[in-house]
Amino acid sequence: MLEELACRLAAIYRTASPPLPAKAVVVMAGDHGVAEEGVSAYPAEVTAQMVQNFAAGGAAINILARQTGVRIVVVDMGTKAAAVPKSVRDQRLGAGTQNMTRGPAMLRQNAVRALEAGIRLAAELASEGIGLIAVGEMGIGNTTSASAVTAALTQTPIDQVTGGGTGIDQGQLGRKIAAIERALEVNKPDASDPLDVLAKVGGFEIGGLAGIMLGAAAHHAPVVLDGFITGAAALIAVGLCPPVRDYLIAGHRSQEPGHAVILRHLDLRPLLDLGMRLGEGTGAVLAMHLVDASLKILAEMATFSAAGVSDSGA
Amino acid sequence: MLEELACRLAAIYRTASPPLPAKAVVVMAGDHGVAEEGVSAYPAEVTAQMVQNFAAGGAAINILARQTGVRIVVVDMGTKAAAVPKSVRDQRLGAGTQNMTRGPAMLRQNAVRALEAGIRLAAELASEGIGLIAVGEMGIGNTTSASAVTAALTQTPIDQVTGGGTGIDQGQLGRKIAAIERALEVNKPDASDPLDVLAKVGGFEIGGLAGIMLGAAAHHAPVVLDGFITGAAALIAVGLCPPVRDYLIAGHRSQEPGHAVILRHLDLRPLLDLGMRLGEGTGAVLAMHLVDASLKILAEMATFSAAGVSDSGA
Repeated sequence: MLEELACRLAAIYRTASPPLPAKAVVVMAGDHGVAEEGVSAYPAEVTAQMVQNFAAGGAAINILARQTGVRIVVVDMGTKAAAVPKSVRDQRLGAGTQNMTRGPAMLRQNAVRALEAGIRLAAELASEGIGLIAVGEMGIGNTTSASAVTAALTQTPIDQVTGGGTGIDQGQLGRKIAAIERALEVNKPDASDPLDVLAKVGGFEIGGLAGIMLGAAAHHAPVVLDGFITGAAALIAVGLCPPVRDYLIAGHRSQEPGHAVILRHLDLRPLLDLGMRLGEGTGAVLAMHLVDASLKILAEMATFSAAGVSDSGA
Repeated sequence: MLEELACRLAAIYRTASPPLPAKAVVVMAGDHGVAEEGVSAYPAEVTAQMVQNFAAGGAAINILARQTGVRIVVVDMGTKAAAVPKSVRDQRLGAGTQNMTRGPAMLRQNAVRALEAGIRLAAELASEGIGLIAVGEMGIGNTTSASAVTAALTQTPIDQVTGGGTGIDQGQLGRKIAAIERALEVNKPDASDPLDVLAKVGGFEIGGLAGIMLGAAAHHAPVVLDGFITGAAALIAVGLCPPVRDYLIAGHRSQEPGHAVILRHLDLRPLLDLGMRLGEGTGAVLAMHLVDASLKILAEMATFSAAGVSDSGA
């Protein structure tokens, strides 16, 4: 897998022995109107509280980013926060999306804006020399939106792409599945139009992350995906522009059942399988160490002939 | 998995928030008399050539050790090398083991010496402040010995613990299985006596690595295992002293079928599954990054209450 990864990176960077790229993780946050349907174990205010925690440097993603020398960029794409912390990029498109069980989560025009915010940020990071971008997210209710996006874009039954999120019980899971059913019935998203799916059953951060992928690919920067939510964003990005798939690296396998469906659909095999379900970009940033390792081996390892080692004769 | 790992490390280090340990990787090399049965894709001289490559810093393990700030200690436990490079520790117990298809691979006394060399080295590293040891190996023919050790100690049919090693074909695989059958028939190793198994069908480096595990555990230093060969060494170490198991961290899942049998037997779940089959300690050193990550999260992550994040109320 490391060999195959190194080959892909050499192709993306267009050089046989790419230097280690400067790295960033973009963590996008957004609130979801569907949270009022009781689909989450935590109240919606946690989204903004966690953004504060990212800004204070105390979350798991801060620690892992520091460990690997990865710059962290936190973006508020549309939370219910009263105010956005100074170190957080303010791209708010609203105080959360609308409740998708009653109508579209956002205007089509805001879906475009979300994508554009991501595309602009990726271009900015690339212009500053960032060559590898991990993506992460925070948003109470966003596994519900991600399940709806995945069901719509992969044409998979809802119960096969819907899981426990951040620890809900069986009763909540039933409500979550029912909410997704209603959202798809009410909105009838067009599977052949990823922008329509994003607007009707997606989220602001999901759109922003899809934009990061589009922008990064345009600047020859591969993107390391995290778990289920960034996977749903990848479905949108690849749906809009299929070649983007070749710029995506699956960082880890999430415990969410919908993630396996996404990985199969995109034909990606994750580097890590640690039973994680945290989000924030934690799995993606952990996997960046393996990306670096593959590049270092490609650049530095002696060939058998250079090291004077006998061949197999095979 | 990272949480569980952090808990185990806290227990081993006897503190609730252990600092990051200084790290070393011990790569032990040995030749195997059974190589003359045509069980390998590469000639026996490759063992000594790769030791030279380790000494020159050009192998994959050198690169990964540099990436993660891991000290590398290469030990010649008994290769056919004419001379041992200066930077390599000379613990040679012979110019390779005897051909185990015709009699014991080594004297019981040399099996004890191999263990003692490992125990001494682990104690030395611990006294120098090393708190986490990865293990790796090099030895043409050593998957054949490791399969024999695994079959004997786990009482598993030979064909279920024997694989392609470093790329042999079906004909060679048949010869390899036949050689292991003969070795077990001729030597009748006593499954209840791990030292007997080591002496009759093991290898010098396998004994040395088992010694590292015994010595490291005695000094409260966990050991990160690599693939199949270090797993076979772990079977011997845990057979001799069962509590050693709790000091072992499975670094990665090797492609060798016998490795899965060992992991089940020791009840260990590997951190990485990258389809690797290189040895040298590469999988173990890659996994050390995850060990560090688990400790950093344990030490630095804000609790929900400290970060002012609302609880689930569950």
